Amino acid sequence: MKKRWARFLPALIVLLFVSVAAQAQTDPLPAWNDGPAKQAILTFVHVTTDQSNPNYVLPADRFAAFDQDGTTWVEHPMYTQVVFTFQQVIVLAPQHPEWKTTEPFKSVIAGDKAAMAKFTEHDLLAIFAATQTGMSVEAFQTTAKDWLAKAKDPRWQRYYTELVYQPMVEVMQYLRANGYRTYIVTGGGQDFVRVYSEQVYGIPPEQVIGSAIETQYTYNQQGQGVLIRPPKLLLNNNFSGKPEDIYLFIGRHPKAGFGNSTGDQQMLEYTQAGGGASLEMLVLHDDAQREYGYGPAQGLPATKVGTFTQALYDEAKSRGWTVISMKNDWKQIFAFGK
Amino acid sequence: MKKRWARFLPALIVLLFVSVAAQAQTDPLPAWNDGPAKQAILTFVHVTTDQSNPNYVLPADRFAAFDQDGTTWVEHPMYTQVVFTFQQVIVLAPQHPEWKTTEPFKSVIAGDKAAMAKFTEHDLLAIFAATQTGMSVEAFQTTAKDWLAKAKDPRWQRYYTELVYQPMVEVMQYLRANGYRTYIVTGGGQDFVRVYSEQVYGIPPEQVIGSAIETQYTYNQQGQGVLIRPPKLLLNNNFSGKPEDIYLFIGRHPKAGFGNSTGDQQMLEYTQAGGGASLEMLVLHDDAQREYGYGPAQGLPATKVGTFTQALYDEAKSRGWTVISMKNDWKQIFAFGK
Repeated sequence: MKKRWARFLPALIVLLFVSVAAQAQTDPLPAWNDGPAKQAILTFVHVTTDQSNPNYVLPADRFAAFDQDGTTWVEHPMYTQVVFTFQQVIVLAPQHPEWKTTEPFKSVIAGDKAAMAKFTEHDLLAIFAATQTGMSVEAFQTTAKDWLAKAKDPRWQRYYTELVYQPMVEVMQYLRANGYRTYIVTGGGQDFVRVYSEQVYGIPPEQVIGSAIETQYTYNQQGQGVLIRPPKLLLNNNFSGKPEDIYLFIGRHPKAGFGNSTGDQQMLEYTQAGGGASLEMLVLHDDAQREYGYGPAQGLPATKVGTFTQALYDEAKSRGWTVISMKNDWKQIFAFGK
Repeated sequence: MKKRWARFLPALIVLLFVSVAAQAQTDPLPAWNDGPAKQAILTFVHVTTDQSNPNYVLPADRFAAFDQDGTTWVEHPMYTQVVFTFQQVIVLAPQHPEWKTTEPFKSVIAGDKAAMAKFTEHDLLAIFAATQTGMSVEAFQTTAKDWLAKAKDPRWQRYYTELVYQPMVEVMQYLRANGYRTYIVTGGGQDFVRVYSEQVYGIPPEQVIGSAIETQYTYNQQGQGVLIRPPKLLLNNNFSGKPEDIYLFIGRHPKAGFGNSTGDQQMLEYTQAGGGASLEMLVLHDDAQREYGYGPAQGLPATKVGTFTQALYDEAKSRGWTVISMKNDWKQIFAFGK
């Protein structure tokens, strides 16, 4: 037997070297340029999954939280769910003739972009209530799914679900490959995001935490239990709501948090407050050419959609969080090759 | 080579037969007596995990929901968390001298069982607010954990976490071994149950859905984000609240639901309304000798703690749900051998 093994030994050694080399060469984050942001991710995963490292994290505690709008997909010039909401007004207008003369519906039907840009939160909630409540949860899911299968972003002429950031999808996959459970923690509607999260991010519905209205249990004509969507907010998953809802859903601090705006500040603070090694990252939209440029951090144009203030930038620096420059840190932004 | 293998062949064949036989003989539910309840569980798992069966359920959709009090552990004569709550009044009384003369605290301090049995929901909430709110979520967890490590049930002289029903633990393990994710869906406090759910049921905190108060995000003296427990109910996870909260957390119908009282009715209806094969079970406490006897279904004594009405019993029968007789279906009730 000894001799037979010996014959194969050189081949085995070659095989061993090849596979070690292949492993070293396989970059888990190919859409990222080399730099401090990419290095921060690699280091975090290394230290928290190496059992001999003092920062090792048990698999049961490996949670990563991703904001969505502006962090994992495009949010400009308008949040996708707001586009959906406005378009639902057009779809439903024939059943509501009074909308032609009633604000805020009137401006939406008229396509008055100046007026729509000035909508208050109250206006948006009125439109949301009129178009996305009152039906069963399944009916809402079908409407959202149908819209997402057809609607396209006017700039790229792509489905909205194609406008996800490839570098962030890579981070999610890399974290999952290392035992992390990836969660979406979005200010957007939980029900809306759950419609496509599995297909787009590989994140199942039960790992999507978002703003949520109540549901109301009742019975259909067959006596079966159904859930209806009343116009009543239950979770406002933004700012302080993010750590509060993370605790509600998973009962502990995430080890990694990803955001891009002031609405994510508390989530990242809470991530860091868990102690040990943690990863906090903020996407800065400083690439007006390939995507959009807005802040107002670092002198970028101010925006109401995904506001990243200089104060947040300064907090990130003082707390040791990583600011991702889309321009410098991302080699490729979309899977379709922009 | 051929000859060498041939030498081992008889041994291999024996090994094969032994392991097939062992598999056939390994009963996944040894604490259950043979009967319709045990058979319903075995059949449900078989048809939903066999890919050739029309009732096959994709692994991603395999969710099972277990009520806790009275379904997976003892709830009589008083819910464990209520015992904890009362004992916290005693613990905290020195810091609240006014409680000696103020109801409902006065009766608790005096150990007046007749008065305590008459407490309204309002009284219980007042005690809950005074003893289990205002601190950080971590401080609450520590208090609950410390209590559970010391307190014992007076009848069995066992820790409360030992008073779990072995047959239900087996069902959980059997479901998990078949790709189901097991959730606790309890009217009890989510934070309380999460303290021991992993150790007792093998269910991690993120798979415990319970009644929950809000949390409030704030900062400690080190500027770190912390969550405080204000006395404000967010989720009342009972009756209609159960399907509503299941939808909030997992976004779909469970395939299996286990309960024991009117507070579980809607959860079981909602389980069944998901369509396809499903399993709905209700534990009937008809074993006053080995545990407790209460209903009032089937002429058992009425109770306010875990009420199982005759109307619920009739609904179970008409909808094809399985009523588990603790007396007849459970060979063994506790792991410690009762």
